[in-house]
Amino acid sequence: MSPQEAYSQLLDKFKEISIISSCGAVLGWDERTYMPRGGAKFRAEQLGYLAGLMHSKVTDSLIGSLIDQVQQSDMLKDSNSIESANVREIKYYYDKQTKLPQKLVEDLTRETSLAQGVWEVARSKNDFGSFLPSLEKVIDLTIQKAEALGYEGEPYNALLDEYEPGTTVAEVEKVFEELRIDLVELLKKIKNAPNQPDESIIERAYDVELQRIFGESVAAAIGYDFKYGRLDVTTHPFCTGIGPGDTRITTRYNPNRLNDSLFGIMHEAGHGLYEMGLEKEKYYGSPMGEATSLGIHESQSRMWENQVGRSLAFWKYFYPQAQRIFKGTLDDVTVEQFYGAINTVKPSYIRVEADEATYNLHILLRFELERAIVKKELKPADIPGEWNSRFEKYFGIKVDKDTNGCLQDVHWSAGLMGYFPTYTLGNLYSAQFFNKAKEDIPNLSDQFASGDFMTLRKWLAENIHVHGQRYRAVDLGKKVTGESLSHKPLIAYMTKKFGDIYGF
Amino acid sequence: MSPQEAYSQLLDKFKEISIISSCGAVLGWDERTYMPRGGAKFRAEQLGYLAGLMHSKVTDSLIGSLIDQVQQSDMLKDSNSIESANVREIKYYYDKQTKLPQKLVEDLTRETSLAQGVWEVARSKNDFGSFLPSLEKVIDLTIQKAEALGYEGEPYNALLDEYEPGTTVAEVEKVFEELRIDLVELLKKIKNAPNQPDESIIERAYDVELQRIFGESVAAAIGYDFKYGRLDVTTHPFCTGIGPGDTRITTRYNPNRLNDSLFGIMHEAGHGLYEMGLEKEKYYGSPMGEATSLGIHESQSRMWENQVGRSLAFWKYFYPQAQRIFKGTLDDVTVEQFYGAINTVKPSYIRVEADEATYNLHILLRFELERAIVKKELKPADIPGEWNSRFEKYFGIKVDKDTNGCLQDVHWSAGLMGYFPTYTLGNLYSAQFFNKAKEDIPNLSDQFASGDFMTLRKWLAENIHVHGQRYRAVDLGKKVTGESLSHKPLIAYMTKKFGDIYGF
Repeated sequence: MSPQEAYSQLLDKFKEISIISSCGAVLGWDERTYMPRGGAKFRAEQLGYLAGLMHSKVTDSLIGSLIDQVQQSDMLKDSNSIESANVREIKYYYDKQTKLPQKLVEDLTRETSLAQGVWEVARSKNDFGSFLPSLEKVIDLTIQKAEALGYEGEPYNALLDEYEPGTTVAEVEKVFEELRIDLVELLKKIKNAPNQPDESIIERAYDVELQRIFGESVAAAIGYDFKYGRLDVTTHPFCTGIGPGDTRITTRYNPNRLNDSLFGIMHEAGHGLYEMGLEKEKYYGSPMGEATSLGIHESQSRMWENQVGRSLAFWKYFYPQAQRIFKGTLDDVTVEQFYGAINTVKPSYIRVEADEATYNLHILLRFELERAIVKKELKPADIPGEWNSRFEKYFGIKVDKDTNGCLQDVHWSAGLMGYFPTYTLGNLYSAQFFNKAKEDIPNLSDQFASGDFMTLRKWLAENIHVHGQRYRAVDLGKKVTGESLSHKPLIAYMTKKFGDIYGF
Repeated sequence: MSPQEAYSQLLDKFKEISIISSCGAVLGWDERTYMPRGGAKFRAEQLGYLAGLMHSKVTDSLIGSLIDQVQQSDMLKDSNSIESANVREIKYYYDKQTKLPQKLVEDLTRETSLAQGVWEVARSKNDFGSFLPSLEKVIDLTIQKAEALGYEGEPYNALLDEYEPGTTVAEVEKVFEELRIDLVELLKKIKNAPNQPDESIIERAYDVELQRIFGESVAAAIGYDFKYGRLDVTTHPFCTGIGPGDTRITTRYNPNRLNDSLFGIMHEAGHGLYEMGLEKEKYYGSPMGEATSLGIHESQSRMWENQVGRSLAFWKYFYPQAQRIFKGTLDDVTVEQFYGAINTVKPSYIRVEADEATYNLHILLRFELERAIVKKELKPADIPGEWNSRFEKYFGIKVDKDTNGCLQDVHWSAGLMGYFPTYTLGNLYSAQFFNKAKEDIPNLSDQFASGDFMTLRKWLAENIHVHGQRYRAVDLGKKVTGESLSHKPLIAYMTKKFGDIYGF
């Protein structure tokens, strides 16, 4: 077999795995949107089957030998070529998957599936004790997984690498710590500032159907193409890139609060634009056609949600439309007052409802706890105490119950340790990318104010989306911005923005 | 390996195939309900992959050797046992699938996929000529398929057997011919009868949202459980049994005609009740957990649609509710007038909109043409002429255009020759089953009139659903009714019913 043939067979194998995964994506979307409740048990069986099928295809030793054949040839002599990127990422994935014993994969699938059910009940009853045995099992298996995958430095690296390939704790911990210190300072300034916006403006009655119409019109305006997507309602909003031509988003509506659905839709549409911007027609089923990391994915959703959606320029264009659509609701409110209201900063218990400024503190808290848990320095039983004491230190408020504390997120029950940091990485990247975009497109604010978001969309597509997995996240960040990962652009952006709003 | 182990492995293999198929069912449902238009091309790729995966699993020679091991033991000495039924049907399926060359399967998949697109355009433009080349290809491949599968008598038997396993042309042609003669006579009587119902009653403005609410309440009343199902809107209504606990139906609404959605929902709910009545918790993934034939499936949908839904007893209970829900729309109409209106008989071009009496003539026409086509006695190019001359003979009206004639159904472009007869078989079985149900439950009409449909539902579950594929359709018919397939019960039922309505 020629190296070209081996490469081509390798891509075929990987495409097959992608198609199996995409079938799972349809089943997952259906499960969370329209599946009748009675179908839940069988759905787990279907998804379990597809996961097992994928694992068996991924770990097929033929993949290893095809990789060897390509690597032993001179096909990859240009390490920046598309072929090199594809083989590098396929090998990376193959090496990881083959390190995981079948039994561990099965145990994790079963225990996380059970633990999520236990967690749901425990959360609703505010009963950490009833969740603890499940949590201990999942954490034990997660640590086994880290050991099986292998790592340099601390075991948490193996987990972080699952979601942010190639990024290490060493690279992020200093940035995160500096971010934490500056954030706590910023929050103090905001708390003591002279101008406090009137948050009650966004807590008026906003008709859910009108929220949908307005949200869809905003998503369409920023380039989310409803011919290739759709918006549905789910308990936990998400975006799923099913395959070429099919990228769907969801949201949830609060009839007495505008922010949740509005910025939720922009957030998910931001993810959607990344999926739609990948060159799937050309590269679908190979790493070149896939997003490079969760952190970069989050940078896209956060940029559209925050740097665009929570900007004054954006509302210069959209506020009159909002006033017309939510007829009578906002007649007494100026665009500046509205802008202040949507940007109200207030320490709160729940991460997914947090404002732009406090959000990252939620993540940093989880990151610190996760590292300690995986190092076995923090026992699962001691999580509530540790959570609550750190929370009070960072946010200045006492956690009233575990449902508002360590029981709030699904991640740990699902075995997703190492996932949280990608949220803050996304925020950091979004600020760095946005600075660069403003440099490249000097009149960006004016464009927003006139309802034009296509230049930014195109800039993101050309600088980020089009590359797929050609570059790892950190390298892509450097390539685009010329700078290393840093907390400064995000802090500078927030200091300027909240300084203007709060008057400090 | 012990025969028990071989049997157990065989069931595992078959269950795997069922799960793959069920993933396809979710993708198929999604494609027809909520998939964004832009996702169509990739969806074909996903479904093609799953179909190929299934074919490769079904034709795995290990299945053949497991069957041999079980058959060579004394496990199946009781030919009426569950094990015997499962092995009989798995072997039947395996033997068939292994007879089809991979190339033919691929050619058929590709050509029917293409032909359906060509047909859609041809139908909308009333241009049979543009469809003819595709139709010729599909028919040629369908005949090749019949030859590959093998048959006794005529090749059409191989095709009919795909949808109604074990039933032959010889068994149905006499019944169909007698049915045709009696139907033509019945239609003459109806046409010349003194009382002609006022069809315009069902052609008033019926709010679509109210149609949905009424339709769902009717479906729930006859036992369709919305915890394990749901109702959506599609261009072509269908029912899909995705798996245990998940059976979905769809409908379409005409704001100026009540019959379409109302009886459409009852029809699909009837299919749904069969799926919900199969013992899937116990037998899912084995033939014992599957419907025995399309004809028996159709007997369930038709019974709920016609013998129940179009009966006077049913409307004695539901008509006051209909009057309340469609407020003001039916105030001037008595239940007898309404009953007449929903049962109006009128020759029409389109099968899916046909009334109960003319419906089967549409099927018989297709059955006769299909047999001639497969025997190569009727060339594809001559279909329109032959269709139109037979149509005029049976229905007494001239076909005005092919869109109202041989271009109306998707089946031939999809390669589904041999499928149509199962619709009429369903009608025949439904009349025979219903006679037996009335014998066993003497006050059935009174139950309907008081809104109680659970005795009939239970009777169907116990006499038909529970058996899965334990008995072939013809045998199940005999077992339940003690009689062979016959046109007489259906004709007797219609003669009595339409005699009462039309006064002859």
